[in-house]
Amino acid sequence: MTSHRIAVIPGDGIGREVVPAARAVLDAVAARHALGLDYVEFDWSCAGYLREGAMMPPDGLDLLRPFDAIFLGAVGDPRVADHVSLWGLLIPIRRAFRQYVNLRPARLFPGVEGPLRTDAPIDLVVVRENVEGEYSEIGGRLSRGFPDEMAVQESVFTRPGVTRIVDYALALAANRSGRLVSATKSNGIVHTMPFWDEVVAERAENSVVEVTREHIDALCAKVVLDPGRFDVIVGSNLFGDILSDLAAAVTGSIGMAPSANLNPEREFPSMFEPVHGSAPDIAGRGVANPIGAIWSAAMMLDHLGHPGAAAEIVGAIAATLAEGRVRTPDLGGEATTGEFTDAVVAALG
Amino acid sequence: MTSHRIAVIPGDGIGREVVPAARAVLDAVAARHALGLDYVEFDWSCAGYLREGAMMPPDGLDLLRPFDAIFLGAVGDPRVADHVSLWGLLIPIRRAFRQYVNLRPARLFPGVEGPLRTDAPIDLVVVRENVEGEYSEIGGRLSRGFPDEMAVQESVFTRPGVTRIVDYALALAANRSGRLVSATKSNGIVHTMPFWDEVVAERAENSVVEVTREHIDALCAKVVLDPGRFDVIVGSNLFGDILSDLAAAVTGSIGMAPSANLNPEREFPSMFEPVHGSAPDIAGRGVANPIGAIWSAAMMLDHLGHPGAAAEIVGAIAATLAEGRVRTPDLGGEATTGEFTDAVVAALG
Ligand SMILES: CC(C)[C@H](C(=O)O)[C@@H](O)C(=O)O
Ligand SMILES: CC(C)[C@H](C(=O)O)[C@@H](O)C(=O)O
Repeated sequence: MTSHRIAVIPGDGIGREVVPAARAVLDAVAARHALGLDYVEFDWSCAGYLREGAMMPPDGLDLLRPFDAIFLGAVGDPRVADHVSLWGLLIPIRRAFRQYVNLRPARLFPGVEGPLRTDAPIDLVVVRENVEGEYSEIGGRLSRGFPDEMAVQESVFTRPGVTRIVDYALALAANRSGRLVSATKSNGIVHTMPFWDEVVAERAENSVVEVTREHIDALCAKVVLDPGRFDVIVGSNLFGDILSDLAAAVTGSIGMAPSANLNPEREFPSMFEPVHGSAPDIAGRGVANPIGAIWSAAMMLDHLGHPGAAAEIVGAIAATLAEGRVRTPDLGGEATTGEFTDAVVAALG
Repeated sequence: MTSHRIAVIPGDGIGREVVPAARAVLDAVAARHALGLDYVEFDWSCAGYLREGAMMPPDGLDLLRPFDAIFLGAVGDPRVADHVSLWGLLIPIRRAFRQYVNLRPARLFPGVEGPLRTDAPIDLVVVRENVEGEYSEIGGRLSRGFPDEMAVQESVFTRPGVTRIVDYALALAANRSGRLVSATKSNGIVHTMPFWDEVVAERAENSVVEVTREHIDALCAKVVLDPGRFDVIVGSNLFGDILSDLAAAVTGSIGMAPSANLNPEREFPSMFEPVHGSAPDIAGRGVANPIGAIWSAAMMLDHLGHPGAAAEIVGAIAATLAEGRVRTPDLGGEATTGEFTDAVVAALG
């Protein structure tokens, strides 16, 4: 029996509700496919921070390193500053384990009424650069608190960093539609974005993929006006973040969006997490949509070498949505997280 | 008779088609209101650049300074790099004349079928910071062309710069719904965006306006999922750019979006321009939607102290769209730019 060791970090808020949902589906699928999944739970969260003063122990990253994958719910709490919670857990994991690809698919499932009038199929993937770019620690303040205060922040793009994400996106596009859209803003952001464009153009030259370039402002508009035309979109850390939430919205709900933070070279564990946050506004009521987490679990199985089991999970999500009887409130239904999860498990076989 | 001197820069592509449309409407409304509008046309464009090697003459800004307002079509040409065309004309005008407010309204006009299922009214304004932030000249490359090349770019936010745009947005919101949403990304962009948030929070304290903060990723999703909830949104140069294209998309077409680049202190001329670009793909066919330009002309009259004349133009656009007979192709019709413009002129009185 193939078996995998999974580090599980439920985190905060609805993270603690959708992680058990994903585990229930994983367990059911593992039983059907004779997979061993050994979970070790790490109770690292903002609640823990408020008790102990740290998001994770000093050797937290060392504890995670031996695992085959990391499964995260969500971190964030209104009482804890984001730079503490996110930069104390999520961002260090992405960076320490060189998870430079953030893969974020979005699909309009039959049976889901998205916000757009069009019923044209939507099935796209945002390939987000995940470790450099606009999310940088470089910067600071001049004259803090004084009238002439200013703040600066440096975006950093490296040739190896842009090359590897573009190559990943090109390979993915070659296996899908053969088309790739690159998000840029080189008409306004005149140093880093022209550099991004140059690397994209160079890599595109040696590829069969047809690459087009869109400025992020116009691209966001097109994702709303004609989402069906997009297949694979590659973007920087910030642009990929924006585009993936937007893509999730046009397919119905942020609650459905999954993500894989991948270290494609497999030097380190990759991390899987729903795109949504801890959602303090609905936490504790058992109504969170677990699709983002369950679909992320499918992406994890795929990464671990079990594409059949992964496809079975996505198929069960699709079947449950198509059937339409059981849905969480964000999709217009009345089901709880648990009821929806049970329906997905029932749809597996 | 009150009269105003307007510098007109048709620019490139469809800029040269929508500017005459806007002028036709302006002339008609000026006649009805006994306004004198003296236009001086400046043929500055990428075509000019290709002939003469500059987007404008060395004393271009001095030539514009004495005018009461500037009306711009669009600049941009596939043969000319954006950093030449835009940073040689558009951006210097915004900065030289301290047009630090970029006002971008979006409205779902009755009779227009937007891309969203919902028929809830959409009537919002994006207040975009227009002279600092992410659009900065500071940055460059290390090891250009070599394997370890990197590019850096600095975003710069100043306390006076953020304060004035936030105060403008607060005053606008106080005159409208009393609600303001501030676009941020302080969970990922950890120096400049927390600074933005701090200034917003400080200014909000002395205001009757109810201010909420949204991260740009989630905000873009909400603009698609529930646009009716938004009234005034304030954002940085980049975030305001993205949000205004997105808002234009959810109300039907980028071709309808107007903008005012305002110097609220009136030390210098303000500039009015449609949000769309030169659109080389449809240029020369006479099918561009002139609404963005015509509505921008209305914003110009408003700024020049003629709110009644401005409202008449917006009313004529609304009436023409509600009547529904005459529309350009981007809105599903078959009318030319000229036919639509004639219909707006006819609807004026
Ligand atoms: C052309 C570009 C530099 C410009 C901007 O981003 O400011 C445009 O998109 C706009 O919105 O006016
Ligand atoms: C919480 C935040 C730092 C994070 C990001 O922007 O990376 C989140 O929005 C995401 O998309 O994973």
